[in-house]
Order: sequence, then structure tokens, then C-alpha cells
Amino acid sequence: MHQEQRQRTHAFLKNHGIFHALFAHIDSVKWLTGFHPPVEVGPNFFLGGPPLVWYSGGHFTLIVLDIQADSVADLGDDSDCSLVTYPSYTIDAPIEGQQHLIDALKSVLDQSGPMPDGLGVEARWLPVAVWQLLRETFSTNLEYVALDDWLMPLRAIKTAEELEKLRQNFRLTDIAHAAARQAVQAGQREIDVYAAVESAIHKAAGQRVPIGNDFVVGYRQANIGGWPLDYPIREHDSFIADISTIQYGYWSDSCATYFAGEPTQEQIAMHRTALEALEIAIGMVKPGVIVRDIDQAVRDFFSRAGYPVYPHHTGHGVGVSGHETPRIVPYNDEVLEAGMVIMLEPGVYFPGKTGVRVEDGMLVTNDGAELLTHHDKSL
Amino acid sequence: MHQEQRQRTHAFLKNHGIFHALFAHIDSVKWLTGFHPPVEVGPNFFLGGPPLVWYSGGHFTLIVLDIQADSVADLGDDSDCSLVTYPSYTIDAPIEGQQHLIDALKSVLDQSGPMPDGLGVEARWLPVAVWQLLRETFSTNLEYVALDDWLMPLRAIKTAEELEKLRQNFRLTDIAHAAARQAVQAGQREIDVYAAVESAIHKAAGQRVPIGNDFVVGYRQANIGGWPLDYPIREHDSFIADISTIQYGYWSDSCATYFAGEPTQEQIAMHRTALEALEIAIGMVKPGVIVRDIDQAVRDFFSRAGYPVYPHHTGHGVGVSGHETPRIVPYNDEVLEAGMVIMLEPGVYFPGKTGVRVEDGMLVTNDGAELLTHHDKSL
Repeated sequence: MHQEQRQRTHAFLKNHGIFHALFAHIDSVKWLTGFHPPVEVGPNFFLGGPPLVWYSGGHFTLIVLDIQADSVADLGDDSDCSLVTYPSYTIDAPIEGQQHLIDALKSVLDQSGPMPDGLGVEARWLPVAVWQLLRETFSTNLEYVALDDWLMPLRAIKTAEELEKLRQNFRLTDIAHAAARQAVQAGQREIDVYAAVESAIHKAAGQRVPIGNDFVVGYRQANIGGWPLDYPIREHDSFIADISTIQYGYWSDSCATYFAGEPTQEQIAMHRTALEALEIAIGMVKPGVIVRDIDQAVRDFFSRAGYPVYPHHTGHGVGVSGHETPRIVPYNDEVLEAGMVIMLEPGVYFPGKTGVRVEDGMLVTNDGAELLTHHDKSL
Repeated sequence: MHQEQRQRTHAFLKNHGIFHALFAHIDSVKWLTGFHPPVEVGPNFFLGGPPLVWYSGGHFTLIVLDIQADSVADLGDDSDCSLVTYPSYTIDAPIEGQQHLIDALKSVLDQSGPMPDGLGVEARWLPVAVWQLLRETFSTNLEYVALDDWLMPLRAIKTAEELEKLRQNFRLTDIAHAAARQAVQAGQREIDVYAAVESAIHKAAGQRVPIGNDFVVGYRQANIGGWPLDYPIREHDSFIADISTIQYGYWSDSCATYFAGEPTQEQIAMHRTALEALEIAIGMVKPGVIVRDIDQAVRDFFSRAGYPVYPHHTGHGVGVSGHETPRIVPYNDEVLEAGMVIMLEPGVYFPGKTGVRVEDGMLVTNDGAELLTHHDKSL
């Protein structure tokens, strides 16, 4: 599982003089190994620290809590990656996750030989207690290179395995939107629409799946986004349903705008313009395009149509994170490449009154884009 | 908000020679300040690291991502605690949460004067990048005392403010159980019961609320617990619904066992025994009782009744974590005190076949226990 990700990382680190590394950001750990612990209730009570991946001599070792190892049970088939777990729950002694994590890492480090130059760590997430262990193990003068964000560009081109995970998530958002469209009715509340969506997703998946993002009625002041609250939906209200699922550790995304009863003429025009903007953006997608050119084209289109230009990005990549390279924003001169998975999401908003956003996800192909979202965005 | 927690912490740290401290465990941050970011989709994309609380000169400073500061907006009323936020999202430049977090912390540290002796940090969660900043700011020879777990015993006695948050959560689990009882029917699946529960909770709360724990049909091999999957419920199956909510950052908990159609004679006897065991446990609750005595009494009761003794704890505290002091387990000679909030949850299991668990939550009062759960646990 995720062998291609590790091969890319190995080549990249070697080229940059990094021969040992400790990854501690959950996105890096997910991407390097396929590990995806449940997130819906926050960190597990028994954790000794974040999950870690130790890289040494071209080999990767994932170190996680025993009860969270299920999701990577098939990692053992890969010769370039090992799984080490540490004990969590017992009724026979106090919970000492930290000590168990340190012991597990120590046993792994002890097999790595003397530490030469070239140690990198994800310093933004690596606990200082773990860093102290490295110093004690190898040298009190040990220094590190901060690797935070190094893997991000490597994650942009999706592997076949990742694409399958992403496709499964996009299938769930299609199902979610059918439920949201039905649920948006005068007399219901934002949270009722959300309840219909989560029910549809969980029943379809046959398991719990984390769900984002925005479920907002048009008259909420920040009508661009927000989690569902008990704002009631009234006749003619617009409702933005921007929905992500995170199955297998990978994010989908998607947005449509629904209306309670008949939309007004103003809303119909906004909605048509947003759909046209989305078509323009999608039509530009192919390898070699500079992403800020897409961003600019869509903003210009709204300006010419006489609408306020949305204050958010025009789009973004998705993968182990719901917002990653390439960001489709004004400053970004990154170039699209085949194999990227991107979202495009133009919107038009009159804060406190009404708003419209539509969003599709697509795979950048050799000559254009393959749509991954298939939800109905029509009026 | 949470001023009493900070006063306890201040007194405790001073007594132990700690005059400056940096807290980085989310449970500590929640408990010290009331901060409770949403957790349901994992860490926010734009974080520069975990939320932090800096303690210096008796004053506390919470440092969090700007878009996550909503939940502690009223912290400003407290003279012993400040809120500092760092920027998250922009379309005008790359996302650089780490740099912003470091800058924000630096501005706070610069007001702390020269660092004397007595620095503590939560070393299990404090990023090494943040630790490096402390060294650069004060001294490259800086050392720390590891404060991990220091706050846990201070958290055991709940404040009035915490009790109100806990009560609101327990009200939600009562509502959830009414939905679960109705939903457990032959032909439904575990995930369908979960969908009914989440819908009931979210509609009642008027907002999203993280939900735990176990939704398992009796014939699942690990029938003690597990997240809901697509196992079908058949006639006569037992179904364990062990439900937590996490509103305002505080956990409730609760369990009942439901049956599809008529329970068998064996299940009726198991269920009656589990309820009796729970009564025995609750009857022992009062200040001064050693928790392992409760644990032992319940295990002995099941043994005498001819049942296998459950492999898990008899109970545990709840608060900002769903499993905290006091653990009601065989080794633990901690003593109950008025103001603790504890769960008691005896069960009897025949793995792969059927299982029963019942659970109540209670506040330890001056002369006994006040039940916080009011769900129907009858057959």
C-alpha cells in the first residue's frame, strides 16, 4: 500500500541529502503509508503522541497505537515499510502511551546504526519528547533539517491507488447531494439538511465517514460557508451545500446551491452565471495551464457580468488533505499536470441576503479534465 | 470562562516550582480555557501546530488559529487569561500557519521578561519547532520539566461551569438512546441505528456534535465495542449502544442494550444481572470509597452469578476527555471525592454470540451519587 508514494519520497530525500527522517504530520503519515485512524471524536485517549514514520536506509517504519493499526494491516506485504505498534489500553496498569511510544521508537532507532549527517524531521508536529529521544540515542549535538511541507508538492500527482480512494469518496458526495436537494425546504433548518446528508452518506458507505463542510442558508451573514446551525430555511432562500467526505483518509469535495421553493429572478441569474463560470474554468483545465490564469479568467467573468467577485480561492487540490497543491488563487503560478485532482468552485454572494456556489472535482488528464463529481447542480 | 481551572493550575505549578509553562495537549488547552475547536474532520488545514497555552507570571495566554477563536470569544472578560490568534486563510499568499504561530508565540514570549528557572512543557505534544523558539528567545541551554499528565488529577473535581456543560451532553445522550431503542429492529444494520442516533442528536442540539462510541450487534466477534458497520440485525440479536457526545469540548457517555424482537431467556437473565451489577456499583458511590473496591465488588458479583467477568474497566471519569481520572479498574486505589463525574458500565459478553452492557453517569455528591444519565435501560 502506498509504495509509489514512498519511492517518490526516497528519491526526493536522497537528492536533498536527507538520509534519515521522522515524519509527524498526520497528512504525511497518511500519504506515506495509507494509515487513516478515525478522526471524528478527536485524538484517541490512549495516544502517546502523534503517529510517526521513521525513514532510514531507504526503509520506512510506521509507529502507531495498537488499536489503530487495523487500517494498515496489509502494509506488511510491502518490503519497503514496516509496521510497529505500541500498547494502548489495559486495566492492569495506568495508561502510559508516551512511554510505550518512546520505547517502540527506541527499538526502531536502535536498528538504524549510528546517525550520519542528514536528519530531517517535521518540526511543526514532532513532539520535543521524541526529539529528546533522538538526541539521547545518537548525539546530544544532533541537529535537524525541518521537512515541514517538503512532501506537499510530491503529493500533487495522484497514484492509481489514490485515485480509486478519491473516486469512492466522490461517489459518496454524489449521493449526499441527492439527499441535500430533497431536504432543502422551507420550514427545515440547516441542521436538518445536514442530518439528511450524513444519514445518506453513512447508509451508503455502510460505516461512519467524516463529513465536511458548509451547510448555510443564504441570509446568514457569512453566507459563503459555515457548519450547519439551527437557522430556519424560508421560502426563496438559497442554500449552499458544500460537501466533503473523508473515506480511507482521502477527501472529496463538491458544492451545489439549492432553493426552497421557487428561486427569484435575481437568484436564477446568479445561479446561471456561476454555472457558466464553472464551465469556463473547467474548459481551461489541461496540463501546462498556469493556475492563476484560471483564477483570473473566472474573476474577470464575474466582473464583466456585473457581480461582486468572490473573496475565496477559485479552487484547490484534494488528497489526504481537503485543501492542497495546487491552490488556484491569484498569486499562484504553478502549472497543471496530468494526474492532479483539483476542485473548481466559483461563487457569487450578497452577504446576509443570498449566495450561490457550484463546485466540481476533476482529474487533470493528458488533454483536459475528467469530471469526478456527478451531482446535479441545475436549478 | 474556566477561571477556576486556571487558579488550581497556578497554585499547583507554583507549589512545584514551575513559574513558566507551555501547554500543548488539546485536553489541557480545553480545560484551561474552554477552547473547543471542531474535531469531526481532523486538524484544520491551516494550522501551524497545536493550540498552545503559555503560562507566565500567573497569567495564561491562549494561542490559536484565527478562525477557531469563536468558541472562546468571552475569554476576554477574564483578567487572568488573554487570547492571541494567528492568521490562517488568505488567497494573497501561500498558507504559512507555522510561521504565523511562531510569530504570535514570539510576541507573547517577548513580554515575559528573561526566563528564570522553572519552565515546564507538555513535551509529548509540544512541537520541537516551538521548543527551538523558546531556546532562541531565552537561552540555548534552556531545559524543561515535562508536565505531561500533571493536570489530570486537577481535572477530576468538576467546576459548576463544567457540570453545566456535562449535563447538556448527558441530555443529548438521553435523546440518542430513545432513537437507538426505536431503531434496533431485525432487518436494519448497525449503521442504520447509528444514522438514527446522529440525526436525533444533531436535530436536538441544533448543530453538529461529535459522537462516540460503540454500535455493535451481539454476534460481532468483538461484541464489546466497535464503530457501526453494515452488519445486519437479526431477530433476537442483542445490540450494544454505547453513546457519547462532545459538546463544548466535554464528553458524556452512556450505554444500554437493546434487542431485536423478543430477547431469549438467556439474554433476559444476562440483562437482569447486568442491571443488578450496575445498581450494586452505583450504591457504593460516595466520597471516600476506594475505586478498586467498586471494581472488585462488581466483578465478584458476575462471578457468583456464573458469568464470565468482562475484560474492561468497571468505569472511568469523564470531562474534556472521555476516559480520565478516576479509572475504576483493579489496580487503582484512588478515592472518590465529591464533585467527580464518573461512569459505571458492567457488562457480560459471549463473543461472537451475544452481549449486554448498561452504563450510567453520575456526579459524586457529599453522601452518594446524583444520576446524570436518564435513558431507559429496561428490556
